Amino acid sequence: MSTVANPLRDPADRRLPRVAGPCGLVIFGVTGDLSRKKLMPAIYDLANRGLLPPGFALVGFARRDWANEDFAQVVHDAVKQYARTPFREEVWAQLAEGFRFVPGEFGDDQAFDTLARTIRDLDRVRGTGGNHAFYLSIPPKFFPQVISQLRRSGLSASEGHAWRRIVVEKPFGHDLQSARELNAIISEVFPPEAVFRIDHYLGKETVQNILALRFANTLFEPIWNRSYVDHVQITMAEDIGIGGRAGYYDGIGAARDVIQNHLLQLLALTAMEEPVSFDADALCQEKTKVLSAVRLPRDLALYTPRGQYAAGWQGGERVRGYLEEDGIPKNSHTETFAAIKLEVDTRRWAGVPFYLRTGKRLARRVTEVALVFQRAPHLPFSKTATEELGQNALVIRIQPDEGVTLRFGSKVPGTAMEVRDVNMDFAYGESFTESSPEAYERLLLDVLLGDPPLFPSHEEVELAWKILDPIEEFWAAQGPPEPYPAGGWGPACAHEMLARDGRSWRRP
Amino acid sequence: MSTVANPLRDPADRRLPRVAGPCGLVIFGVTGDLSRKKLMPAIYDLANRGLLPPGFALVGFARRDWANEDFAQVVHDAVKQYARTPFREEVWAQLAEGFRFVPGEFGDDQAFDTLARTIRDLDRVRGTGGNHAFYLSIPPKFFPQVISQLRRSGLSASEGHAWRRIVVEKPFGHDLQSARELNAIISEVFPPEAVFRIDHYLGKETVQNILALRFANTLFEPIWNRSYVDHVQITMAEDIGIGGRAGYYDGIGAARDVIQNHLLQLLALTAMEEPVSFDADALCQEKTKVLSAVRLPRDLALYTPRGQYAAGWQGGERVRGYLEEDGIPKNSHTETFAAIKLEVDTRRWAGVPFYLRTGKRLARRVTEVALVFQRAPHLPFSKTATEELGQNALVIRIQPDEGVTLRFGSKVPGTAMEVRDVNMDFAYGESFTESSPEAYERLLLDVLLGDPPLFPSHEEVELAWKILDPIEEFWAAQGPPEPYPAGGWGPACAHEMLARDGRSWRRP
Repeated sequence: MSTVANPLRDPADRRLPRVAGPCGLVIFGVTGDLSRKKLMPAIYDLANRGLLPPGFALVGFARRDWANEDFAQVVHDAVKQYARTPFREEVWAQLAEGFRFVPGEFGDDQAFDTLARTIRDLDRVRGTGGNHAFYLSIPPKFFPQVISQLRRSGLSASEGHAWRRIVVEKPFGHDLQSARELNAIISEVFPPEAVFRIDHYLGKETVQNILALRFANTLFEPIWNRSYVDHVQITMAEDIGIGGRAGYYDGIGAARDVIQNHLLQLLALTAMEEPVSFDADALCQEKTKVLSAVRLPRDLALYTPRGQYAAGWQGGERVRGYLEEDGIPKNSHTETFAAIKLEVDTRRWAGVPFYLRTGKRLARRVTEVALVFQRAPHLPFSKTATEELGQNALVIRIQPDEGVTLRFGSKVPGTAMEVRDVNMDFAYGESFTESSPEAYERLLLDVLLGDPPLFPSHEEVELAWKILDPIEEFWAAQGPPEPYPAGGWGPACAHEMLARDGRSWRRP
Repeated sequence: MSTVANPLRDPADRRLPRVAGPCGLVIFGVTGDLSRKKLMPAIYDLANRGLLPPGFALVGFARRDWANEDFAQVVHDAVKQYARTPFREEVWAQLAEGFRFVPGEFGDDQAFDTLARTIRDLDRVRGTGGNHAFYLSIPPKFFPQVISQLRRSGLSASEGHAWRRIVVEKPFGHDLQSARELNAIISEVFPPEAVFRIDHYLGKETVQNILALRFANTLFEPIWNRSYVDHVQITMAEDIGIGGRAGYYDGIGAARDVIQNHLLQLLALTAMEEPVSFDADALCQEKTKVLSAVRLPRDLALYTPRGQYAAGWQGGERVRGYLEEDGIPKNSHTETFAAIKLEVDTRRWAGVPFYLRTGKRLARRVTEVALVFQRAPHLPFSKTATEELGQNALVIRIQPDEGVTLRFGSKVPGTAMEVRDVNMDFAYGESFTESSPEAYERLLLDVLLGDPPLFPSHEEVELAWKILDPIEEFWAAQGPPEPYPAGGWGPACAHEMLARDGRSWRRP
């Protein structure tokens, strides 16, 4: 691992911030939303926190007739608007000196040769030492072309101790077959340890906190199994519609967009056994074990409800249905809501359903993992005393209001022994003075450090598609998804699925 | 059980408030602090909540030359000052009609005959139906005399379905021998089911909530044992000194005043097995099992630290030491702080120390039961990442700020996997719109309803003295207790006891 040497610092002390060594980052698709709203601000925030090397270089590549100064201005505006930390002139000045822009198309050999020259220059001028990461913030259909250009122009080849890395954003394919093809293309040019697949959920503090909660504490692990857990609900609800993403979203849908990556990763972290360490290999090993053990319900018709948002009210505003959105074909069968019941065939989880759901235009934006516990085996109370007692639940709130909630029964004040559900809360924001870095800050730094634990491996990606493929095939043979009104909690079929099992979805 | 019949009410529905049937209450020692500050307000609050019968009667007995009206005025002033619920003229008017005062000394036969006549009158005029409870809010030395008067005058004898009950306040003796003698005196006149021993801690909501927490939930019971609990701390800290209680307190001390009753009851509720129901017999059975299983440490010199408060600062004020308090002999050995290490020899608790402590003039007023859990058996984190991680703890906060706190480790926001302790809180006051009845409200109503689960049985009292007697004997053979400055957390010897075991007291 290449970190700046600091004689005062114990290299084993992970509490001290890890600082990236000499390096640069090349972003393809630098004019896109992700670049402006997430990557550029994250780079500035990292620099501001002193976590980037003094000679860090950022190279933009896009089809624009920009000079370096124009590019710097774009980054400047993005940082001013979206950065988490305060703007400091001196940090900006040093950072911006390392900005370069290379105009070009992905098919243009000359542009890539210019890029290669630019990088060699940076190694000399900024001292980036031959260490460069290539961030593909572009539609997947351009991956093969860009990757082959990286090889042709010699950009993918590292010399000596220097490194070259490639960063790809989801979707990692659109099914098992395409994911394998994509991986074949990448792995022909980059060795596995040089490939960083970004699932930005894994960069979120509260997702990493699942590991801390489970394995740093005594309290939770003893009840984290089929003896006590009745079922698990993993929810990622969005209140927004597809916005300007029609071109990407239609034909992809909620399951490929969210379940295949974010929700199955959350499931893996929730259900996995203790890893021997938090190194990438150890984590990957446990996550793949869980994903391999996931079993689909026998009757997909009953346990994979889909929906598509219809017009409705949200935040006091009338909003359009999915089929009325710009760029969506009137007969689209793309689901904007999907729920799946899965089982995990391990000793720990056998018989415990994991209900996953995601949707757009739901009542509110919330992501959470909820362990719902069985009722106590015996209640030595009078029957009426526990009428308002539900099931205990441990809820890991991932966004917004990051934290943990414990729901349990407590005596109602009064002269009878009546028990009612109450909530106990821990809020990240209230408990720590440290503010949470953005997911992309964490993940970009990890790319530059070459620290892979928070990136899904290709094995995980494949296993996730293996889970999803049969469902997608089943759906493809069905009629359109069930419409649901915007601003609610999804289609009736999703509620019927849980009702059939004698359960109900949480209202987060 | 005598409750007012209500055709709309399912008698099995314990959620509806239970209303006392026709009855009266006689208070001996009606001019004392307890009467004015707790009993009178509780009676009014019960009446105000509609839980007393319309013809309820309250009779005061004391050495005062008062007419009924004078007594009513005293009650009126006490209610105005101390009642929990708003003053309502119509409730007061109806209640006050049932007030009677009988002047007299405990040795005065005639006074008791007058009392008997008064009660017969009330049965006729107010319809109290021969049901009367006698509340001995008097020093224990007068118990034999009053009880024998109750017998002589026929007051203790109930006729037909009517009942007579006797209520005694702690201390229930000052050692095993005296407790047995006291019980012999009472039980000669009243059958066991007619005797109500008040330990007002058992009337507190959060004490009863220990039962709800443990037995209504799935979450806690699996970790409520020696496999996960490292030790238990039960604390009752007072910030006040002895105030005007010199005559009672000196020679009694902290252990007899608090540990024998409150703290050992808290220990019993915390450590007991699940009762088959919450009936008095079932609860008593489990509590006595635990108390029988309590074992003293072999070396009392090391594990029963005592202290006596010296002068110091409290709340910005200079306060006197115990030996300077009015009425305290300058050479008093009475402890105002006591801590004890106990073990509970059951399969559930073997090897888990229970540390009990109580003291006056400590840093703040707080009562809590804290289960401190073992560290996780393995931490798959780097060593420095868990430096600020303590032991998990579940804390039942009994007063003030009634509620429950869970302490556990959570990831510190930032780019490393660092774990730090955080608290998750549930506050009674915030979670329920119902306000908590005062302990005496609950307990007085239970006396009138003949509902004994919240009163310690004589067996429990005896077992508690069996635990305390050897310690008191050991102390009696020692020098004076260790002085500790007012406003701190007790004597050094108490901290050394835990340090010796590799632990430390919580700072609540």
